[in-house]
Amino acid sequence: MDEFSLIQRFFSSSHNNTHNNGVILGIGDDTAIIKFAKDEELLFTTDTLISGVHFPQGTDPAAIGHKSLAVNLSDIAAMGGYARWFTLALSLPEADPAWLNAFSAGLLKLAQQFDVSLVGGDTTRGPLSITISVIGTIPQGTAIRRSGARPGDAIYVSGHPGMAALGLAALEGRLALPEIEKSSFQKKLDYPQPRLEEGQFLRTCVSSMIDVSDGLAADLGHILDASACSAVIESVCLTDWLPASPSLTKETALDAALNGGDDYELLFSIATERIPQLEQNWRESFPPLQRIGQIAEGTGIVMQDSSGNIMNIDPRGYNHFHV
Amino acid sequence: MDEFSLIQRFFSSSHNNTHNNGVILGIGDDTAIIKFAKDEELLFTTDTLISGVHFPQGTDPAAIGHKSLAVNLSDIAAMGGYARWFTLALSLPEADPAWLNAFSAGLLKLAQQFDVSLVGGDTTRGPLSITISVIGTIPQGTAIRRSGARPGDAIYVSGHPGMAALGLAALEGRLALPEIEKSSFQKKLDYPQPRLEEGQFLRTCVSSMIDVSDGLAADLGHILDASACSAVIESVCLTDWLPASPSLTKETALDAALNGGDDYELLFSIATERIPQLEQNWRESFPPLQRIGQIAEGTGIVMQDSSGNIMNIDPRGYNHFHV
Repeated sequence: MDEFSLIQRFFSSSHNNTHNNGVILGIGDDTAIIKFAKDEELLFTTDTLISGVHFPQGTDPAAIGHKSLAVNLSDIAAMGGYARWFTLALSLPEADPAWLNAFSAGLLKLAQQFDVSLVGGDTTRGPLSITISVIGTIPQGTAIRRSGARPGDAIYVSGHPGMAALGLAALEGRLALPEIEKSSFQKKLDYPQPRLEEGQFLRTCVSSMIDVSDGLAADLGHILDASACSAVIESVCLTDWLPASPSLTKETALDAALNGGDDYELLFSIATERIPQLEQNWRESFPPLQRIGQIAEGTGIVMQDSSGNIMNIDPRGYNHFHV
Repeated sequence: MDEFSLIQRFFSSSHNNTHNNGVILGIGDDTAIIKFAKDEELLFTTDTLISGVHFPQGTDPAAIGHKSLAVNLSDIAAMGGYARWFTLALSLPEADPAWLNAFSAGLLKLAQQFDVSLVGGDTTRGPLSITISVIGTIPQGTAIRRSGARPGDAIYVSGHPGMAALGLAALEGRLALPEIEKSSFQKKLDYPQPRLEEGQFLRTCVSSMIDVSDGLAADLGHILDASACSAVIESVCLTDWLPASPSLTKETALDAALNGGDDYELLFSIATERIPQLEQNWRESFPPLQRIGQIAEGTGIVMQDSSGNIMNIDPRGYNHFHV
């Protein structure tokens, strides 16, 4: 089967919505052709997933397909935008139809959920690696950057950061957990939900935003660097959603919440006068919202425990080339 | 050095033009933000280069940087468009500053030449692999597709397809060539020139177009499939630019011209009444233009030699998953 047939066979299914989405020409020519509306800006992002780095070897190919797209959609969500079109560059050791069927099913199911269209791709023989590039759109001038946090702003996060890292630890045998929690945490790891609708709502009220991919501390660090601010966070707010379990110490839970990556929740700052607008309009269909701290003058991150003790946090996160 | 610093250090040089190119926000946030003009359509393409597949191991990193972008710009050229913005997903076994310096210099020099801006990226540790995604623009409704060839149209190609394949054969010791030709052919292999200006001119007169990446026969096959036509090509037109050399038989030269990939010249069909417009306006700065055959009814490719003998051509090209 040649490259062209491979793309046609596995990725041109009826699940790939290119109708009514401005796609004039999709897969099959030198490039896609896309109609663009005025009064919009374009968002453009790319992310690679490599076997053994971003997912354990032996991960269900449907989960790999889902996650490859989800991490990119999450970047669009973190700007407050609408994901529209994507390309897929797939490097595979062999063209295994069963693997490709499952991978494309996972990928295209998520694409359909968020109405984003696959419009081009490239397949090559090589070590398993997936690079997806997404174009999104957003009304002119409304994208939320990392650089807008100001001293006094409150810091919030959606959902429960740390669960994906605990799922990975359980999967790798580093942590014993009851089966039901192990399974629930692994689902967070394998099938992260990009918070697109949440991001689109947050665009109307927040001052800065990022998605939690490297870990809460590291990603908060990116906001602080871009905004030239510091932050104080409350440790009690970071772990109270995690289960009480003999094998899950407070230290492990806190480490997962602060430094575990792969949650793809939204972390943002908001001016205090906007908080009522946020909390009153946060929808029931959205994940729980957690206020975790406050932006301050200066640099760095300080964590305060329930007794008022403080410690400095190292925003280390996951770093591919840490030296 | 972390991922972010890596991108900042090597790819945010003054060579990366993001001014006056609609880039509202480049590298450093979750996505780039780009201003888009009305009355334009957007072109979107992605291509991966893998070490040992798309370039020999040990290739000069400057050439790898150049070629990674060139093959993508070539897809924009084949639609007749303007390349504008790109992202880089780079997988590297180690963060070697000397390698990265040379790679980014080769990449950004070409980006500067065609005024295309690097606006985002992702670096990961893994086997050497480069995926670039490019967004281009084109006036509404003017992109040249593969599907527009009609019986009676003439077939043309720019430049000298086959040279890159001969350069590779010489590099791998499969072909002995005089040093000056070896060096000139290897330059075609390592530093292909995307034919963007040529494509923009051709947009005004041709009926179908593709860039020669897989080989002339394979890429002509893509046009014929998309257009539901056949083609007759003249063998004498395919090799008369190649040097007379004892080690370069007519068969080798013809095989390189037909089946050698990596030339990134433009192959197109044109209605005969448009030929004067093409030939009179083809610029001196463009590579030589060669008429190589004619579109016909039916399917397949037939090659005719100078004695009038004909043979069927197998458009095999390079195929990553041929089974």
